[in-house]
Formats: sequence, C-alpha cells, structure tokens
Amino acid sequence: MNKTLIALAILSSVAHADEGMWMPQQLPQVAKQLKAAGLKLDPATLTKLTEFPMGAIVSLGGCSASFVSPQGLVATNHHCVYDSVAHNSTPERDLLANGFLAKSLGEELPASPGSRVYVTKEVTNVSSKIIDATVAKLSGKQRSDAIEKKQKDMMAACELDAGHRCTVSSYYGGLEYYLIKQLEIRDVRLVHAPPAGVGKFGGDTDNWMWPRHTGDYGFYRAYVSKDGKAADYSKDNVPYLPKHVLKLAKEGVKEGDFIMALGYPGRTNRHRLPSEVSFTFGWNYPAYVKISGENLGIIARETRDNKDTALKYAAQVAGTNNYYKNRQGMLDSYAGSDMLARKTAQHEQLKAWVNANPARKQEYAKDIEQIEQLIAKRDADVKRDFFLNYAQPRLLGTARNLYRLANENTKPDAERKANYQVRDLPRIKARVDALVRNYDEQVDKALVLHALSKYASQPKAERHAAFDAVVGIQDGMDEAALKAALAKLYAGSKLGDKAERDAWLGRTPAEFKASGDSFIQAAVAMYEPGLKEEAEEEELGGNIQQAYANYMKAKIAYMHSKGQAVYPDANSTLRVTFGQIAGRDHGVDGTAWTAFTTVNGVLAKATGQGEFNAPAAQLAAIRAKDFGKYVDTKLKTVPVDYLATLDITGGNSGSAALNAKGEFIGLAFDGTLDSIISDWDYNKANTRDIQVDLRYILWNMKHVDHADNLLKEMGAE
Amino acid sequence: MNKTLIALAILSSVAHADEGMWMPQQLPQVAKQLKAAGLKLDPATLTKLTEFPMGAIVSLGGCSASFVSPQGLVATNHHCVYDSVAHNSTPERDLLANGFLAKSLGEELPASPGSRVYVTKEVTNVSSKIIDATVAKLSGKQRSDAIEKKQKDMMAACELDAGHRCTVSSYYGGLEYYLIKQLEIRDVRLVHAPPAGVGKFGGDTDNWMWPRHTGDYGFYRAYVSKDGKAADYSKDNVPYLPKHVLKLAKEGVKEGDFIMALGYPGRTNRHRLPSEVSFTFGWNYPAYVKISGENLGIIARETRDNKDTALKYAAQVAGTNNYYKNRQGMLDSYAGSDMLARKTAQHEQLKAWVNANPARKQEYAKDIEQIEQLIAKRDADVKRDFFLNYAQPRLLGTARNLYRLANENTKPDAERKANYQVRDLPRIKARVDALVRNYDEQVDKALVLHALSKYASQPKAERHAAFDAVVGIQDGMDEAALKAALAKLYAGSKLGDKAERDAWLGRTPAEFKASGDSFIQAAVAMYEPGLKEEAEEEELGGNIQQAYANYMKAKIAYMHSKGQAVYPDANSTLRVTFGQIAGRDHGVDGTAWTAFTTVNGVLAKATGQGEFNAPAAQLAAIRAKDFGKYVDTKLKTVPVDYLATLDITGGNSGSAALNAKGEFIGLAFDGTLDSIISDWDYNKANTRDIQVDLRYILWNMKHVDHADNLLKEMGAE
Repeated sequence: MNKTLIALAILSSVAHADEGMWMPQQLPQVAKQLKAAGLKLDPATLTKLTEFPMGAIVSLGGCSASFVSPQGLVATNHHCVYDSVAHNSTPERDLLANGFLAKSLGEELPASPGSRVYVTKEVTNVSSKIIDATVAKLSGKQRSDAIEKKQKDMMAACELDAGHRCTVSSYYGGLEYYLIKQLEIRDVRLVHAPPAGVGKFGGDTDNWMWPRHTGDYGFYRAYVSKDGKAADYSKDNVPYLPKHVLKLAKEGVKEGDFIMALGYPGRTNRHRLPSEVSFTFGWNYPAYVKISGENLGIIARETRDNKDTALKYAAQVAGTNNYYKNRQGMLDSYAGSDMLARKTAQHEQLKAWVNANPARKQEYAKDIEQIEQLIAKRDADVKRDFFLNYAQPRLLGTARNLYRLANENTKPDAERKANYQVRDLPRIKARVDALVRNYDEQVDKALVLHALSKYASQPKAERHAAFDAVVGIQDGMDEAALKAALAKLYAGSKLGDKAERDAWLGRTPAEFKASGDSFIQAAVAMYEPGLKEEAEEEELGGNIQQAYANYMKAKIAYMHSKGQAVYPDANSTLRVTFGQIAGRDHGVDGTAWTAFTTVNGVLAKATGQGEFNAPAAQLAAIRAKDFGKYVDTKLKTVPVDYLATLDITGGNSGSAALNAKGEFIGLAFDGTLDSIISDWDYNKANTRDIQVDLRYILWNMKHVDHADNLLKEMGAE
Repeated sequence: MNKTLIALAILSSVAHADEGMWMPQQLPQVAKQLKAAGLKLDPATLTKLTEFPMGAIVSLGGCSASFVSPQGLVATNHHCVYDSVAHNSTPERDLLANGFLAKSLGEELPASPGSRVYVTKEVTNVSSKIIDATVAKLSGKQRSDAIEKKQKDMMAACELDAGHRCTVSSYYGGLEYYLIKQLEIRDVRLVHAPPAGVGKFGGDTDNWMWPRHTGDYGFYRAYVSKDGKAADYSKDNVPYLPKHVLKLAKEGVKEGDFIMALGYPGRTNRHRLPSEVSFTFGWNYPAYVKISGENLGIIARETRDNKDTALKYAAQVAGTNNYYKNRQGMLDSYAGSDMLARKTAQHEQLKAWVNANPARKQEYAKDIEQIEQLIAKRDADVKRDFFLNYAQPRLLGTARNLYRLANENTKPDAERKANYQVRDLPRIKARVDALVRNYDEQVDKALVLHALSKYASQPKAERHAAFDAVVGIQDGMDEAALKAALAKLYAGSKLGDKAERDAWLGRTPAEFKASGDSFIQAAVAMYEPGLKEEAEEEELGGNIQQAYANYMKAKIAYMHSKGQAVYPDANSTLRVTFGQIAGRDHGVDGTAWTAFTTVNGVLAKATGQGEFNAPAAQLAAIRAKDFGKYVDTKLKTVPVDYLATLDITGGNSGSAALNAKGEFIGLAFDGTLDSIISDWDYNKANTRDIQVDLRYILWNMKHVDHADNLLKEMGAE
C-alpha cells in the first residue's frame, strides 16, 4: 500500500474536481483540491478510519449510515429502514403509513431479520498475499480456487475475533485486494421513521427527480451484549457505545458550501472496456428494463385486492422500481451520448501507448487482447441464462440453497464454498425466514409463468437441460401447458410452510435425496449440473481476473503517465466524495434547478393521497409557519432537500453529508436521473446528488412528530 | 418645478430599490440608489433631455425607440413596426412571414400611414399656468373647459414652430402639468424587420411568458426635408441627422449587471383609490376579458378562409390578444393578492393622517370624501356605455368623427375641440385612410352584432336613445331582428368606399345633414345628444380633476412626511427606470428562471410552423454554431432574451436598454405575466421585464439576415 501511495502522491491532477469516490487512504493525494474546495479539516484526519469523523461512519450492508449519539443511535435513509418498518407493519398497525417513534429504549422494535450495523475496525492491503508468486502463475479455475481459498483463510483467521465480519474486497478488477474487518452488530432496532408521506414523499414519481421533497431519513439503534460484544437480539442487550459520533452542524448550509459524503458506494463501472459498455447498453439493460416493467405490472395486478400481499411485496416493488428507473435513465443518457465512441477511442489510445514501447507491449498486450474474448464468452452466458434466472420459482431457489448448504455442511468449514460457511449461516437462515414476509405463492407463480414463457421459447441448446427436465419443458409448449406444469410443481412441495423450510435447514444430503417434495427433488436434480456450470464459471472467472487485473495495471500506468490519479471503481467499501452544494441547468433554456427545495414545495405537491400524501400535521405546521429555529434566513422557510456535486451511487444511500468542519448537515439519498449515467461515464455538468437537509429532519422531528427524546439525545435541543 | 425638486431632494428613501418610473428631472433625488446600483454616468447627465444619452431617445407614439446611427436609423421592437410591415405585405409578398431588409436607402418602404418619430426638444413645468388663481376657483365643466383652453393655447403657441407637436401632460392626477415640445417627424420608413418567426417567435403563446425567445426588434429611419424640417413623405426627403446616437455596447451583459431603460411608459395606476381598484378588478377588467375573448373568436371565424382579410385584422388581433392576456394576468395576480385590503388600509392611514391635524383636515378632507362619490358616478357611466362602445359599426364611428370635424371646422382653430384642431387633421385623415387596410365589412358586422345583442338586452334607461333610434332597437329584439336592422344600416352607406370617405373629409355640416347615407345620417342624429353627454362628462371630469389633484397633494405630503419620494404614474411621457439583470423564482419550488435564454431554446421550441416557425437559415446557423463574435463566454452560445428588474409598462415597448456606461445593450419589449399587476401594485419579488439582447439582434442580422449595411451603419462591424 505504501508503495502505491507514494507513487500516487506525486500525481496532482484529477480528471474532474468533483469526480472521485476516494478510498480514505487516497485523500492526501487530493489534499490540494480538498483545501481548494473549502475543507477546514486536515485531509489526513479523514484517512484514520477509527477516529473522528470516519469512526462514526457505518455500513448497514447495502446502505450507509452513521452514529449520531453516544448511545448508538444510527441515522440513515427512510428507504434503508423501509424493510424494518414494513416488517413491523400490519394492516391494523400500518407503521409505513403512520410512521414510528419509540419514545423510550423499551419501545424500540427489532429491525427486519438480517439487519446489521457494520463498524469498520481495520483495512489492510493484502494484494501481495492474495496474488502471491504461486497464484500469479495459475490460470482458470485453479486460479479462482486459489484466490477464493486465500480469501476464505484470511477471513477465517480474522473472524477468530468473535463478533466480527471480515471481507477481502477486490479493487481495480482484481489488481488489488484489501482485508476489511468490521464489528458485525446483529441486534439492530428500529427507533424512528417518519410516515411514508414524509420519508417516501413523492414515491416513485419523484424518485431520481428534482425538484424533490422527500424526507428520506430514519433511525436505528445498535445493541450489543452487556459486555460490549456483538450478539443476537436479546432484551438484556444494551445500546452500543460508539467511540465517535457525528456532531450536528450549528449553522444551516447554503449554495456554494463545501460538502462531503462518507459512505459505501456499491458499484461503478468507470474502468470498463468498450465491449462491456456495448453489451450492457445494447442488450443487458434494455432486457432488464423490459422484464422489470412487466414484472411490476404483474405484481400490481396480483396484489391489487390484498393489502397483506401488497405489503409483502412492497419492498420488492420499491427496489425494482428504483432499478427500473435507474437503468432506463442510463439508457436515455447513453442514447444521447458519445460514450461508446469515446471509450473506444480511449481504449485505442491505451493500446497505442502499450504498443509504443516493447517492454509495455510484452507486459500487457496479450492480456488486453485476451480480455475481449473472455468478456464475449461471459456476455453469451448472461444472455443464455437471463430468463432462466427469472423463471425459477422462489422456493426452488430456496431448495437449491438449502441442498447446497447440506452438501457444504459435510465438509470442514474451511473447505466449504464461500457464502456457505459457518459464518454465513445466520444470513442464509434470515433469508429463509424472510419468506414469511415477502413471499406469496400466487404472485410468485404469475411472475415465474411470465418468465418461463420467454425462457421456454429459447432454442433447446440455450436452455438448461436439468431445469427443463424438472419442470417438464419441451420445445413448443404453450402458456397453458407451462402453467399446468408449474401448478404441478408448486402443488408437489410443502416448502411454502415455514416449519417445513426450517426443518430442511438442518437435514443431510441423503434426506434431501430421499424426499418426495417437488422443489427438493428439483434442487437435487439440478445440483450436479449446477456444480458443473459453477466450475465453468470459475474457469472463466479465473482467466478474466488474470487478464483484467493486468489490463487495469496497464490503464493505471497509462493514466499515471498522463499525471492523473486513479480511484478504484466502487465495490461497497468505504469511500469519500467531496464537492459543493449547487443547483444546475436542466436542459430547459431560460430555467434552472435551484440548489434547495423548501416546505413550500411540500404544500404545493401535497394531494392528500398516494405518493404525495403529506401528513395533515405537517401541512398544518407549514401553513402556520411553525418553523422554530429551522428556518433558513435567505429562503425564509424550512429547506427540505438540496443538490450537491457529490459523486455517489447506490450503496451511498444514508451516507452522512458533512460540512467543511466535518459536522453533520444531512443525508445523501439519491441522484438526479441524468446523473446516474456517471456510474459508467462521469458527467461533470449534470451530476448532482440529493441530500435531505438536516434542518428538515430536525424540524419535522420537533414540530411535527415531537421526537423530543431523540433530539435531546442527538444534542439538537 | 425647482421648488418641487428642492422639496424632494431631501428625501432619500424610496419604497423599493427597483421601483420607479422616474421623470428624468427627478434622478438627482435617487442619485445615491443609482450609484449603488452601479451607474457609472453622473445621474445629472440623464436629466438633460437634449444631450447624450437622453437626446437619442424618441417616441413613436405608443412605442419607444432610439437613434442608433447618425443617419437617423431608429431601433425599436418588431411589434412596434408590425403595422408597417403588415401595411407593406400582400399575400404575394408576405413581409410579415419573410421579413424585410432594405439594402439601400432607396429600398426603404413608407411606414404605415400616421407613423411618427417624436424627438423631444423641451419639457416645461406649466402647473401654475394651467391651474392659475382663476382656474383654481372653478369647478365642473367650467374648470374642464378652462383647463382645456389653456392647454390648447399653450400648445398652439408652441406649435407656431412648424414641424413640432406640443402636448400638455397631466401628472399626479392633475396636480402638475408639463408642456412637452417634440419635433414630429412624419416621413418614417421601414428599414428592416426580421421574419415573424424571429420577431414574433413564440407568438401569443409566449407573450408575457418566460422562458422567452423572441427577437422583438425592427428598424425605422426618420426622414426630413432637405433643409432639415419635418415634412410629409417625399422622395426628395433625406435622413434626419440626430444630434445624439446610442453607442453599441462593446461587451455583452451578464446577470447582476446594472441596466436602465429610457422610454415612454403609457399608463400606470399606482396612486389609485381603493374604490378604483375595486371597480377595475371587480367589474371592468373581467368584462373586457370576456368580450375580448369572444371578439377574437369571431375574427378568427370570419377570416379563416381569407388570407387578405386575416392580414387586415392581424394588427387588431395582435393588440387584442396582448391586452386580453395582460388583463387576465392582472386578474389572476389580483385574485391571489391582498391588494384591495392593503390599498384600503393605506388609504385609511392617509385619512387618519389628514384628520389628525386641523390645517390638513381643512385642506384635504372634503376632497378626499368627494372624490369617492365622483368616481362612483364615473364607474356607473362606464358600465352603462360598455357594450355601446363595441356595438357601434366602425364606419359609424368614422362618420361621427367626420361630422364632428365638419362642425369644429366652422370655428376658429383656437376654439375647436381638442383633437379636432388643424394640428390634428393629419392624424384624423390617417385614421380614415387606414380603413382600407384594416376594415372588412363582414368581420365588422359580426363583431357589432355580437356586442349589439348584449347592448340591446340592457334596460332602456341604460341604453342610448339616439343610437337606439338610428339602428331601430326596441326592447326585446332577438338576434335575427338585430341582424336585419344592421344589414339595413350597412347597406344604406357608401362609406365602405375610400373615395367616398375621402370626400366627406372636406364637407360642411349642411352637406352632412342633407346626405341620405345611413351612417352619415346616424352621425348627424347622434351629434347633439353626443355633445350633451360630453358636457356631462366634462362636468364630472372637472370636478374629478379638482378633487383628485388635491387628494394626490395630500398623498404626496403624507409620503414626504414618511421620508419617501414619489414618482408620478406613467402618462406616456419620458421616464427612466433602473435596476439589475436578474433571474427569479417563479413559484415552482426547487426551480428558478435564469436571467438569460439562448439560441438553444430557439432550437428546442422550433416546430417549423405557426408561432414557433423559426427560419430554416437561422436554425441552420444555430446548429452549425455559426456564432461569430456574438457568443457569450459563460453561456457558450448566443443569448436571446434576458430578464431585468426594470419597472416598465405598455408604451415602454422598444425602449433602449443601457448599461452602466450608457451604452446600448438591448430593447425592452415585455414583462412576465405576474409582473403586470405592478401597473397597480408594484411587486418587487415578481417584477421582471424582458429585453432582447443586443447580441442576438446583431447575430441574427449578421449571420442569418446578412444586414451588413445596417451593421456597418451602426458601427457594429
């Protein structure tokens, strides 16, 4: 790591001032830009993961969050606590609609099963340990296996420290690896969420949109055993006492202010090859958008008259809608851009640079050529299996996971496949448990039938023989025949019953083989072919890792030769992005987006129903100008959301936004629709992310929801 | 005048920084604000009407304009030269659609009859001469007559200087009077107008709107006789050589820049009484909006299949549409405002202030009470005669004017009624001449029938007995009967014939009385009753002037007592307004109007037809980024229109916009719809006027219309 840092330290120029999801360790490289942007802290402070303010930043696994009280209170987005609110909701006590506020610790509710708060303890560069001299010589599945084994060993050693979860994450396409050790807090409780009319105000209509008026905030609390260790839920557990807590900003923010967000961006694709861009935008995203739209329609139709079922699918609908709009937005941006031509030209320049020097050509040329062929193979596999993934009943997937687990359980833990080790059991169990809350046979059957029709129309050679056999698919079957086959399959299984599922969690392979349950039988039938496919994937994966890492090495060397620092694509690890609070043009000549929205816009949008159902108490407070100290002196009312130039993506949801002094000023929760193409191709002019203003959060808590206990705890009063 | 100026010079505070249509003489009072806003000239410079830059500012009578070349080239709005373009248009040579450019002096076309360029020579305060000790004691018609006589005498004396037009204008509701002497240039020629797809781009859809992309500019040239005197059109005439000419700004403007506009605002009503507000918004404007909408529909229907007739009514349609949208816009603003309550409260405060002091009470109280009753009487008359004004055939109006003229002609000039003196003959003749171009019997009949139905349904006591007799109206007539009566009236007249009309211009009252022409007979029949009504109006008018002037005197004294300067309501005299180029909020939270639009917006709006029919050559130049030196460095393209905080109203159309150095930066041509309520009640937050950017004018002239001759003449090249 030190070598890399030193190499990078001499690089002063960054492609764009606001671009970059920087690893905290990289920040000294951009110290000049940070200072120029207005940061008042020493950039070096931000490299210390266990000190202030980075020590207050946590991951929820898929969302970002932060400690905002010494009693383990965690602030994040409403959509990040959404599952937990839904989990605790019933038609009789609809917490989604009405919101929830625990007035005391005793009133806090268990978050949805599997909820976690991850507190990062250590991050170590283990690149040379993962790709050591031996591994460096391997290819294909041997290489995959060797890397996986090293990762598992490293993680296992790390997790000997009970209550921790360790991960080895890959950076720059497998060029670098870091071991990340996190305290895994398993007792997570829901503390407060505003009504959906605040937390999800604007719904899918406003999602990815500006002007925005969503109060996308919610609170968890992390609990540990009395001796401070991570532990399963217990009423004897006590709040976790974080070492570092974000301080609320004393002053409100304004346009032009410095801002940074600390969080866990999930995935970007800025270093992708032209062929990957072409496949994604030419085939993969369009296919996803099409079937997602269809599936949303099916769920709407099937749950129309059943509030209970609708609640079960609420989270899936929210997630699908989100990705649907995201992918469509990227497709729209792509259609109007020269991205592919530009990426192709850049790639040609890289190749020319490589070929211009014999040593570089010797080191990189072969892999740069090789990677294209490997990716073409992977793309063909993705196309082939696209509908198969949607055509498998959810309980078949569950049965396959359970049978795989039973088989892995026969091996010593260290030899088990990744994700099926002892450390993974709670998450597997949580996923099985979740079926009670998010599965309905009628809805599932309708979704599967829809995808199955598409799958069954593929040529036999592109279908999955074992799956065909299990369902009874033959060339030329019509939808009625497929429906009948599915009906038989579902009718032959008892896995719809929770007790039955739980029982299979502990059974042996022999018991699976002896079962007459249709889904269990199907899982057994698909097991061996599945292992064979997995081996093929690993063969391909090993070769891709090898060639891709070397391609990235060439690319980084090329960028350095031009004096440019390179941050890795997002990979769900902790990153820092900084920029400014700023409005922007939005394509309608003579108009612009202002940096802030206000509660006036809530009044204007409120319809009293559906996605714009702002609570009556909130509307009354706005009309009465009951703003207290949360009024913005310039706007003369309470700000709601604001735009900034931060470079974030999915996974950053719930990221704490901090001002130049490192004080808490809001929560990042979204980007504008034409920003998200930046996942592939950073667009400086358009990229704006959206924060909910801390003042709106506090105002709503104080003047509408009367969450005085929490305000006091956070030091807001 | 000096006394007033001295009294005001001690007043430093103005209600709002950007409010005010200042008489040039008043500018030293706001010198501090002018400097603070950024003016680089000495404010005293602007008080000198015959020096730079005020000397370059002219009136077109209803529009404002300015000299932009030493050869008498006059820049104004496209909609101010619209009549002249229409006048020269035929279905075969449609200058409105295609635009017009004279490549040499010889190619310039006579402007529409009656077109004038007025160059102000002198402005003199004559208040104490108009309301002298004798007049001050008079009331009613005696007072009206005396004031009119003094005005006429003063004007006649002034106009002894041939080629000049003199006016005595009333300020502050008749509290002050100024004699204004102007050179009246009568040979005005059309030099250049862009196609309607530029000059009227956006049409009525975009009128009063933002974002705006109208290239609302056009050029006249003023001609005089070879010895430099105002003269009728002659091919021997030569361009007028103005003493002062605006200089084009070398640098483009940007948001935040100082701006001032010099022009002739027509009318505002900021000093009106609450009862006048109530009547206008409660009855008068709604009635106007209703019948205007109906009339527009009738004209559209009647001209649908006749391009020639449609062209005849194009100017009337444009004017009606403009006022229709204006009045409706004011009604919308009024509906959401507390204007009436606030004006009422302010009036109560004024009354309280008056009554708090015996001397003040003695001086003002009676008139303040009296004025309310007089206004109520006037309102009743307006209501009564509302439909009558629309129900008179246009040729009946012409006949009445001609007969009045014949009667006035029998008197010595000095004793003739105002507007019927020798000095008025050319304008009367021009109005009669214009019928060839803007009158069609079928359309007129349809409009009159529509209004007549409404008029005829009024109770007999509220109808006009002489008019009833002329048309043959009786209680309870249905539309068919009215239509038949109208048909007979129209059929009985030859005034539709131009030669016939011209002949009547010179005839005696006896000849009128002897005529069998139906409209002439009607005019004779309505003459005596008309004089009686006029006398009643003058009785009322004299009393109103007396009371109103004293009410205004009280109001000004009250405002001075609070340290506030008072500018008079607009009255078509030269005024200066200053402010900043600035965007604004526009009510949609989270968005804003930017100060500038650009040619990108022209591309976006262009549909290739109707109101958004941008010329192909212009679109090609935009697409090719053929911007030359007119590109804005920040916008990276050519700006089109921009918003500013200037306080303008109708009549300001064509006003030169100047920068801090007094250089020409564009032409004011409109305001946003929610600005126009400021005619009654200045709204600082909303008020924005719209300028066409000089750079757009020059770019379009250079890169699209190739008007290189004019660019050279203006010193743009």
